[in-house]
Amino acid sequence: VTVGELPTEPALLSSPFRLMVKCADAPGIVAAVTGYLYELGANIVHANQHSTDPRDGSFFLRLEFAHEGPLSREAFADGFQPAVADRFGMRWSLTDGRPKRLAMLVSRFDHCLVDLLWRCQVGSLNAVVPIVVSNHADLEQRAAMFGVPFRHLPVSNANRAEQEDALDALLKSLRVDAIVLARYMQVLSPNFVARWPNLIINIHHSFLPAFSGASPYAAAFRRGVKIVGATAHYVTNDLDEGPIIEQDVVRVSHRDSVADLTRLGRDVERQTLARAIEFHLADRVVVLGNTTLIL
Amino acid sequence: VTVGELPTEPALLSSPFRLMVKCADAPGIVAAVTGYLYELGANIVHANQHSTDPRDGSFFLRLEFAHEGPLSREAFADGFQPAVADRFGMRWSLTDGRPKRLAMLVSRFDHCLVDLLWRCQVGSLNAVVPIVVSNHADLEQRAAMFGVPFRHLPVSNANRAEQEDALDALLKSLRVDAIVLARYMQVLSPNFVARWPNLIINIHHSFLPAFSGASPYAAAFRRGVKIVGATAHYVTNDLDEGPIIEQDVVRVSHRDSVADLTRLGRDVERQTLARAIEFHLADRVVVLGNTTLIL
Amino acid sequence: VTVGELPTEPALLSSPFRLMVKCADAPGIVAAVTGYLYELGANIVHANQHSTDPRDGSFFLRLEFAHEGPLSREAFADGFQPAVADRFGMRWSLTDGRPKRLAMLVSRFDHCLVDLLWRCQVGSLNAVVPIVVSNHADLEQRAAMFGVPFRHLPVSNANRAEQEDALDALLKSLRVDAIVLARYMQVLSPNFVARWPNLIINIHHSFLPAFSGASPYAAAFRRGVKIVGATAHYVTNDLDEGPIIEQDVVRVSHRDSVADLTRLGRDVERQTLARAIEFHLADRVVVLGNTTLIL
Amino acid sequence: VTVGELPTEPALLSSPFRLMVKCADAPGIVAAVTGYLYELGANIVHANQHSTDPRDGSFFLRLEFAHEGPLSREAFADGFQPAVADRFGMRWSLTDGRPKRLAMLVSRFDHCLVDLLWRCQVGSLNAVVPIVVSNHADLEQRAAMFGVPFRHLPVSNANRAEQEDALDALLKSLRVDAIVLARYMQVLSPNFVARWPNLIINIHHSFLPAFSGASPYAAAFRRGVKIVGATAHYVTNDLDEGPIIEQDVVRVSHRDSVADLTRLGRDVERQTLARAIEFHLADRVVVLGNTTLIL
Repeated sequence: VTVGELPTEPALLSSPFRLMVKCADAPGIVAAVTGYLYELGANIVHANQHSTDPRDGSFFLRLEFAHEGPLSREAFADGFQPAVADRFGMRWSLTDGRPKRLAMLVSRFDHCLVDLLWRCQVGSLNAVVPIVVSNHADLEQRAAMFGVPFRHLPVSNANRAEQEDALDALLKSLRVDAIVLARYMQVLSPNFVARWPNLIINIHHSFLPAFSGASPYAAAFRRGVKIVGATAHYVTNDLDEGPIIEQDVVRVSHRDSVADLTRLGRDVERQTLARAIEFHLADRVVVLGNTTLIL
Repeated sequence: VTVGELPTEPALLSSPFRLMVKCADAPGIVAAVTGYLYELGANIVHANQHSTDPRDGSFFLRLEFAHEGPLSREAFADGFQPAVADRFGMRWSLTDGRPKRLAMLVSRFDHCLVDLLWRCQVGSLNAVVPIVVSNHADLEQRAAMFGVPFRHLPVSNANRAEQEDALDALLKSLRVDAIVLARYMQVLSPNFVARWPNLIINIHHSFLPAFSGASPYAAAFRRGVKIVGATAHYVTNDLDEGPIIEQDVVRVSHRDSVADLTRLGRDVERQTLARAIEFHLADRVVVLGNTTLIL
Repeated sequence: VTVGELPTEPALLSSPFRLMVKCADAPGIVAAVTGYLYELGANIVHANQHSTDPRDGSFFLRLEFAHEGPLSREAFADGFQPAVADRFGMRWSLTDGRPKRLAMLVSRFDHCLVDLLWRCQVGSLNAVVPIVVSNHADLEQRAAMFGVPFRHLPVSNANRAEQEDALDALLKSLRVDAIVLARYMQVLSPNFVARWPNLIINIHHSFLPAFSGASPYAAAFRRGVKIVGATAHYVTNDLDEGPIIEQDVVRVSHRDSVADLTRLGRDVERQTLARAIEFHLADRVVVLGNTTLIL
Repeated sequence: VTVGELPTEPALLSSPFRLMVKCADAPGIVAAVTGYLYELGANIVHANQHSTDPRDGSFFLRLEFAHEGPLSREAFADGFQPAVADRFGMRWSLTDGRPKRLAMLVSRFDHCLVDLLWRCQVGSLNAVVPIVVSNHADLEQRAAMFGVPFRHLPVSNANRAEQEDALDALLKSLRVDAIVLARYMQVLSPNFVARWPNLIINIHHSFLPAFSGASPYAAAFRRGVKIVGATAHYVTNDLDEGPIIEQDVVRVSHRDSVADLTRLGRDVERQTLARAIEFHLADRVVVLGNTTLIL
């Protein structure tokens, strides 16, 4: 898959399939779901479940299965909904392994952007990037290096609402599946965030909840921590408080200046963000309250 | 559970149960197993499966389930064998969460022994230790600190066979489930190893397959590696070649002498061995050829 | 050195020596110090310096050197002070490699205590432990296992001041060099802390500054972090805000309950605390504002 | 510094300076060197020494110092050689912080190349890349993305000697300081290697000495290791046996296929190679026998 090339949307899903299920815990769920798939002629390749007794007794299941021919969501629903889903009060979704369309929002730092565009281009991330959007013009050339269109949408307090509307319209016209804030230094409005629930992934350059807010490397230096980190999370209206998808860290010492922390942290940021996106692209992330399950 | 105290062996198994299944891959296995458990009134708490298409098309499943009353293996087999196991040609086993009985074999280094006895005593490892056996007398006091009997079985080339027979008889009389070589510096004979297949866990003080054999820290120092490690594996008749259960590493530098590597490595050895034992105790380790699955 | 055995205090220092120097940065400091040591007939084994231009232009130097005969602090000062220290306005100290005397304060958790007593006993930490003090009686047996005296000093709001006075008197009578809070769950008063400046090492069971205060594992679980950690720091009067000596982390997942985090975190706590103590025992830790240098 | 742009070679060195010293260990070396620098009006910014008593009594010193005006190597040598170097029989070198010129040799994998070119371009590696050379034409576009000339030099057993001569001439005409084998899948001849002693850095995709030779990820998969790694080392005539500069690892599991190991390993390879190059560019690497010191 080439970055920037919009795949045509097949009407039918094809192997491997992913079935995500959520309901109240009860005996017999796995048997019912896997029994249904067996009758359908499917072969389960991978299964991952989680029950949250201590929290609220919810049950989560992610199944990968193979099936000889293609399936339509409608045909699958016609059988699965009455036979299984209704019985347990399930919310469920069926996807396949086609690449997702990711929009990248950036400002001036290019380390995450270059890494992600490269990963998409060589196929280590199963995604296409139809657009890079920025509030600055600096990274247009970076997008061009990978053949990806670039849109400059400068944001001020005066024009924020209309620019966000323009952004939303642009992303929808490009049939974008999710948005990556690859070091985008603007806060998105609650209005915009509400339109993309659990679909905006941000990388914060600290090990949250430590050093939320601005200038985390300077704050880490002042505090004298011996390890710094990065956190990829879904964006909510509480800044740096959304559900955490992935975190990683790197050891530092008193010899490292703020510039050193920034440089060392870049490698952790891009790695952490790439892993979080990989989980998202594989439909492995379930949001539970303000936390995530990686199934 | 107190170390050294032999639990009475209950005739019946009780929740949580663990069902391990192995067979050739085929559609419908998960549905059949979970369907059977549902009819039995069981609730699946955790499920982990693995299929090895690229290797030989084997299917592996580990299920944890809860059931209101106790179960006997015989009663479970009476139903499960004809209804499910025979259909797929399964090999299976049913266990529960009772502590396993581990014998510790040691020589002169005490770091793994002290750590493991402490973990068993405070319950972070779900095991009891009925005996510590050594070819040296040095660590008798260490066993005594935790109230565990100690047996000194010195080994020479002349008496190896009879000492191993004595050891085997001792361990069987104590109903030992598995043997931990917590830095035991003698090679066990093929005869002994054959009696305890995939039941002897050794810790080797290198990141295998690098630096197998004697004096791995000295070899690592000479080679100038920047990281040293430890490997916990099941013992086979190929020295340091058995299936690897767990590995871990620590960063070193040119400032570290062989003594430093030895000291730093101790922490990695005991941690790696403890984790491998934890997997074994939870019936999570499946041996596949010369590798392991941790389900 | 056996734990609990008070070494006799030699009047003279012997190789290897450690010279710690602090002054305003200026050209010629290293030349002056090393030139003086050369004339003394010393051979420098290890040198570590740090300059803090960006902060306040301070200079820090730690030298290890060998010298054929013993040295007295007084004789060394007689020459070094006028010839070198006065010239640069230095604060300095000279120590040797003798074991330090550590008091352990504990409450009910034993994982750090057992690990540290074992390390002192086998010599992987260069320290003796003349006393274990606790506000609970639970761990008396743990101290006894290693032959270390145990003192039960229960603390309430009513008796806190007098118990701290008793503690201080006890530690001074035992010529204690530093105090380790090995999961001691009481807050020490400013009065007590002031008597032991940068001499009290605490282990906090989170990756500070995240999750300071009580129940950090429960807080980490609620926040859904993917990594938990531990922090060893000197105690100041700002709870969990003292200079950080060492930190480490371990990866966790949504499958881990608060009990799991607590269990996994124990291994990180004891490892982190042991490393911090190792740095302190080797006179490698310099406090600079609210941070540390590890020279 | 832009990738591919050859800096003009200044006749004079300027701050910060790096002085590397090697000699037999003896008292007074540090005093003599730092005393000389003090008289020169230099201020030592960083010092790192290492003595190898246990091995052969060698002494190694790396000093960073600032000096108000520029210095020529010749003028420095005129004073330093007779006053200090001759006295201790030193081998020494003086460099400054100018970017080094790195040639990249690649075959078909682009992950290290893209990462390194990006790092050079944004200045996180202090180097310029005047040329990318490959035995395949595949990566010409990757070099072009960063504005770096590309030379296709196909190699067969018949033309190996003449192609290596052409390569050597090309690199010398470009005043290349060091060569990076960024996944170059050809073995260089002893003749070529001898011309670039400790100046060719290779990345091997395993944790050496484990899995040297071809297809290390496949070998790691067959052995069932739980961690895979990468090793950056100087190239010698013993394949995969040269002095190790840096290593790193990543955890894997039985779920990871050879393709997964390859994908996960890519991130470790590029990170490990970048760090090794960073050490080399800062003149921090000293080769001692078949090992390295990182000063």
